[in-house]
Amino acid sequence: MTIKKSVCVLGVTGSVGSSTVDILKSHSDKYFVDAVTAHRNVAALAATAIDLGAAVAVIADESLYEDLKSALAGSGVEATAGEAALVDAASRPSDIVIAAIIGAAGLKATLAAIRRGARVGLANKETLVCAGDLMMAEVVKYGATLIPVDSEHSAIFQVLEQKSADNVDRILLTASGGPFREWSMADMMAVTPKQALAHPNWDMGAKISIDSATMMNKGLELIEACRLFPVPEDRIEVVVHPQSIVHSMVEYSDGSVLAQLGSPDMRTPIAYALSWPERIRINVPRLDFATIGQLNFTSPDLIRFPALRLAREALRAGGTVPTVLNAANEIAVGAFLSGKVTFLQIAETVERMMNKITAAPLCDLDQMFDLDDMVRRETLGLIDTGR
Amino acid sequence: MTIKKSVCVLGVTGSVGSSTVDILKSHSDKYFVDAVTAHRNVAALAATAIDLGAAVAVIADESLYEDLKSALAGSGVEATAGEAALVDAASRPSDIVIAAIIGAAGLKATLAAIRRGARVGLANKETLVCAGDLMMAEVVKYGATLIPVDSEHSAIFQVLEQKSADNVDRILLTASGGPFREWSMADMMAVTPKQALAHPNWDMGAKISIDSATMMNKGLELIEACRLFPVPEDRIEVVVHPQSIVHSMVEYSDGSVLAQLGSPDMRTPIAYALSWPERIRINVPRLDFATIGQLNFTSPDLIRFPALRLAREALRAGGTVPTVLNAANEIAVGAFLSGKVTFLQIAETVERMMNKITAAPLCDLDQMFDLDDMVRRETLGLIDTGR
Repeated sequence: MTIKKSVCVLGVTGSVGSSTVDILKSHSDKYFVDAVTAHRNVAALAATAIDLGAAVAVIADESLYEDLKSALAGSGVEATAGEAALVDAASRPSDIVIAAIIGAAGLKATLAAIRRGARVGLANKETLVCAGDLMMAEVVKYGATLIPVDSEHSAIFQVLEQKSADNVDRILLTASGGPFREWSMADMMAVTPKQALAHPNWDMGAKISIDSATMMNKGLELIEACRLFPVPEDRIEVVVHPQSIVHSMVEYSDGSVLAQLGSPDMRTPIAYALSWPERIRINVPRLDFATIGQLNFTSPDLIRFPALRLAREALRAGGTVPTVLNAANEIAVGAFLSGKVTFLQIAETVERMMNKITAAPLCDLDQMFDLDDMVRRETLGLIDTGR
Repeated sequence: MTIKKSVCVLGVTGSVGSSTVDILKSHSDKYFVDAVTAHRNVAALAATAIDLGAAVAVIADESLYEDLKSALAGSGVEATAGEAALVDAASRPSDIVIAAIIGAAGLKATLAAIRRGARVGLANKETLVCAGDLMMAEVVKYGATLIPVDSEHSAIFQVLEQKSADNVDRILLTASGGPFREWSMADMMAVTPKQALAHPNWDMGAKISIDSATMMNKGLELIEACRLFPVPEDRIEVVVHPQSIVHSMVEYSDGSVLAQLGSPDMRTPIAYALSWPERIRINVPRLDFATIGQLNFTSPDLIRFPALRLAREALRAGGTVPTVLNAANEIAVGAFLSGKVTFLQIAETVERMMNKITAAPLCDLDQMFDLDDMVRRETLGLIDTGR
């Protein structure tokens, strides 16, 4: 008899969260749900918690506590609310925590899960980009297991052999190249938000779609990869692969390159984070290589996509610089979506902020949160006033 | 301090053997050589044995014993000769045996290594094609470790996760398609040996080059894969991939496809057989994906390449049928090279022999050797007399 594993899903109503729910429901013989959390969507949270038979449901927005309580009345699911309750949910003794809260809001709860040595399926980019060194030190200290839940890093995780870590020569991080992969610089000057939101392979939110169009998304993933895996920055290369079938590769000292391929479907990496080191069956489209026909590869163009260059510079500089890059980029993307800056000015804004804010070592999370706030304010100022 | 592993190389003067020697020489801190063997090349055998500081050198052709003895005089390397001496060499307590003798001659020595539970790097196709079930039963019985030393099966071995064997949905065995991949049936009727010997990606011997041109090589590999890995025949697909960069792939139940890629260089799988489960550094050309540019995939054409269909039929029938396929093919390839049959008649001859010889269970190696002899004689008769 298999012992069921208990799961906590932080951010259960989002895209990764609801895919996680799908998988958990089809494998109720292997997993049961302990706690689920959401930001503001009380109805979806309550329905999911009841459907999955969760012990606890947490709404992050404390003002919605009574609503959640009513929605869960008589269900047997306990209702809690607020940021501390999020941390409490992650601190409960579940076997696996899927950390799928977007942005800085998920950081403390993720840290709580790490600090009790849990297995954490990490779908939260900010954790690693802004506080990667701090986080990874905690992972080692508390013996937690961090399994990335995004296609590229899951691919690397799947083909990175524990026993051969010293023999990894290169990580090849694949990038779709986004919708402007073949556009001229002149055409990229006039890109509209609508054009930038049309990603060729993945259906994603607005922020990440724009990041994909500027290739900042790949830059952030480069930073993440460097935190997650024991490979120095100069051994991680970005390879443009428009079909997004090869999710990433690892090259070893014997010339072998191991790759993970698949349909662009988040359920595969989510399932792997749940089932590792084994695998489970899930209903995702399978690759048909004769139909795919060909897979293409090119080098990224750092002139047209300066965000990639900036991310590598931030990674090399270390300390507070990746935090500055990330915060400035979020504000600049918002400004592009609301028509305040042009497409090419996104990276330009990030670079100006990286030059403006003096780099420093990153010592703790409070410093990071303060810096993040400050950079956002200053970036807004820069965009509004040009200074 | 690493404890050095001892290695026996059966067939040290051949292509795989000499690549193995290269690797062993550059990793003398990890390996030392116990025994080396060759068929008839006394000079090369003696030079290699002395160079590597082997304890024993075996010449398979007994009539060359005195020559070997003279060549090794004063070197400290013991000289032995004959088939029994080959088996003795494999029976010595070395950690790793690289079984690189071509054809049936290597079978008994390989079996001796398996029966003492050694790690065997298997570069001998006949072992698995003709006597795969018998061999694999011995592997299990004696707790031996069989590591394939050819690009495709090494690729599968590298990405087949022990813990996920139940969750393997498909093995995708890649095939270059050979030099006639895009030829019409009419053109294939007039193929000359010279045309058939020109393989696009690999520099190989005559027999295997012709097998690659008919795709019988891939058919034999299909049979091997089915013996080596716990996957039924109908879950092993052949995918034509002209560049021979992706050496093979494994698809799991969660939609992940893991692939091993590399330059077409035998040293990578040989090194892996030596270093498994770790890896060592070897000097092979690295893949540059931007230069490669694209990887193509198509389905194989079973009409133009009937050898693939025949191999699958032999695999499904089991018992003696793969032995018949293999022996008839060897004779037919020889007849093609000497101008006695046309290119398309190679597979035709094999099919006629498969229809002619009544299938039976394969009970032991003696039965297999007798059958192999008989099929060769009958195939020659069929080619000479048309009956």
